Amino acid sequence: MNSCAVIIKNLYLSCDLYSMNRMKDHNDHEGYSSDLLGSALKGFGVGKVVESGHGELKKGDLVWGLTRWEEYSLITNPESLIKILHTDLPLSYYTGILGISGMTAWAGFYQVCSPKKREYVYISSAFGAVGQVVGQFAKLFGCYVVGSAGSDEKVELLKNKFGFDDAFNYKEEQDLNAALKRYFPQGIDIYFESVGGKMLDAVLLNMRLRGRIAVCGMISQYNLDHPEGVHNLANILYKRIRMEGFVVFDYMSEYSEFIEMAVPSIREGKIDYVEDKVEGLENAAAALVEISSGTNVGKVVIVVARDRVCFLYSSSSIIFASLCV
Amino acid sequence: MNSCAVIIKNLYLSCDLYSMNRMKDHNDHEGYSSDLLGSALKGFGVGKVVESGHGELKKGDLVWGLTRWEEYSLITNPESLIKILHTDLPLSYYTGILGISGMTAWAGFYQVCSPKKREYVYISSAFGAVGQVVGQFAKLFGCYVVGSAGSDEKVELLKNKFGFDDAFNYKEEQDLNAALKRYFPQGIDIYFESVGGKMLDAVLLNMRLRGRIAVCGMISQYNLDHPEGVHNLANILYKRIRMEGFVVFDYMSEYSEFIEMAVPSIREGKIDYVEDKVEGLENAAAALVEISSGTNVGKVVIVVARDRVCFLYSSSSIIFASLCV
Repeated sequence: MNSCAVIIKNLYLSCDLYSMNRMKDHNDHEGYSSDLLGSALKGFGVGKVVESGHGELKKGDLVWGLTRWEEYSLITNPESLIKILHTDLPLSYYTGILGISGMTAWAGFYQVCSPKKREYVYISSAFGAVGQVVGQFAKLFGCYVVGSAGSDEKVELLKNKFGFDDAFNYKEEQDLNAALKRYFPQGIDIYFESVGGKMLDAVLLNMRLRGRIAVCGMISQYNLDHPEGVHNLANILYKRIRMEGFVVFDYMSEYSEFIEMAVPSIREGKIDYVEDKVEGLENAAAALVEISSGTNVGKVVIVVARDRVCFLYSSSSIIFASLCV
Repeated sequence: MNSCAVIIKNLYLSCDLYSMNRMKDHNDHEGYSSDLLGSALKGFGVGKVVESGHGELKKGDLVWGLTRWEEYSLITNPESLIKILHTDLPLSYYTGILGISGMTAWAGFYQVCSPKKREYVYISSAFGAVGQVVGQFAKLFGCYVVGSAGSDEKVELLKNKFGFDDAFNYKEEQDLNAALKRYFPQGIDIYFESVGGKMLDAVLLNMRLRGRIAVCGMISQYNLDHPEGVHNLANILYKRIRMEGFVVFDYMSEYSEFIEMAVPSIREGKIDYVEDKVEGLENAAAALVEISSGTNVGKVVIVVARDRVCFLYSSSSIIFASLCV
């Protein structure tokens, strides 16, 4: 074993479209490297250190970071793992709202979008793991927030659970441009982009002067051999729009700043979060396929093993079963 | 007369594609307002104050700013005029390299592109009034600079007169992607965008990680009823590109900073500049049409009247003729 490597027992794995995107070839752009055919899929997860050759991690530490879709992982670059300091919140949250998706929302909204209070924020894919959090951050910050999602159920939750000012089901809109004009009669200052294609085209027509577009994804384009054309780009010029692609890895040095903001907000119930737990690594592939169909509600987490002591009730006694480690 | 208005005698008018674009309807976005049908075309020019109701401008002052394509203009917002302080350089330069196009190049390159020494810079429309200057600024700054233009003559001038590291005739390239790969085997850090459409698509494929695209124009799209689609936008995400539209008006408060840099560089011959002078306002419309065809070499300036005392040689004597004011 490499002297500074660690072995972790994987507890929870994040299941999202990013995982799907990793299986495509992107010429190995930093942060978007593809996985090698035949190796376990890489992904973010929460684990417990079971062996450590790294000075700052010891056996029993809970960590999150890039791991693999397998029961135990050898992490040869353990400096990429982040030790979990706040364990009063569910550990699975570190696959999402306290991990990459929350940090992505934070970096994208606060760092890339340069928001101002009372600005008009539109989030496509608003019910996604990142979108939900962006919307709640934007509300806490004092913006007017509208999101779109792909089902009426999600739209209802965005409005009634996550506190968006408004939301709509984009699948029921014949004319996205008209829909955006209806929801943003004053136009859009900030667009948190996860979709691309026709949605981006409609948004460009509705952006305000000096608007900002944070490009976090272009989901509608990932599986197309010939990506759709975007026709309204001249608005970037006319409206002096800044459009910026970002990946969260460029912002990881600011993780503690994010945690200081996010942990109290979650504890105080100011930020809501929904998980869809999938039990067992053997069900992970099916979960990944399902996520592409957009039918999931909430962040999909693969439960590989549980860390906490779990109380199993039987008719006669309480059996303590430590399900992992 | 409005108590703070001024009347200027127009001397030189800038003739560029921006003028053409002003005749289109852009829903009156700030800085891109269209001209009213039947009124004289607005445009940048150099003039001499002949009447002033404005405290900081007096009769005889030379100014540049937004004026109209006519002999005399009533300027009701004279605070938009900039007094010309350096008159040892040709006054016509204030329609271009010391006016809007030079300032556009400066703001776009230094402020929008955030350049670093030794970065790879590509300029489409490199022989245009702005492109020429961007290229020379980028060379002075220490970048590697390649430009494209629409004729072999312009390509030669870019390389041999304006000091570009390389240049190519885009009309002779069947495959813009392949051409860019040839000129930028390491990829492009900074793209100064004036073209849009297919060129932008090819550039997106060749951008480097954390590249910047300053959108100064999208000339190929202005006269299309249905703008071309741009298909490779997902690269903005994959490569964390920042793409930003800008107009020079947002940077005018920094004009003196630009002048402090540009005037000495021009005086010392570090920056070269070519003008195509068109004599007489009556030839302005034809010049505007010609400019759209891309056949001009250098900045097209309409000479409405000359300020300087002009020596006309006759067979017997020297006649002093003050051609204007």
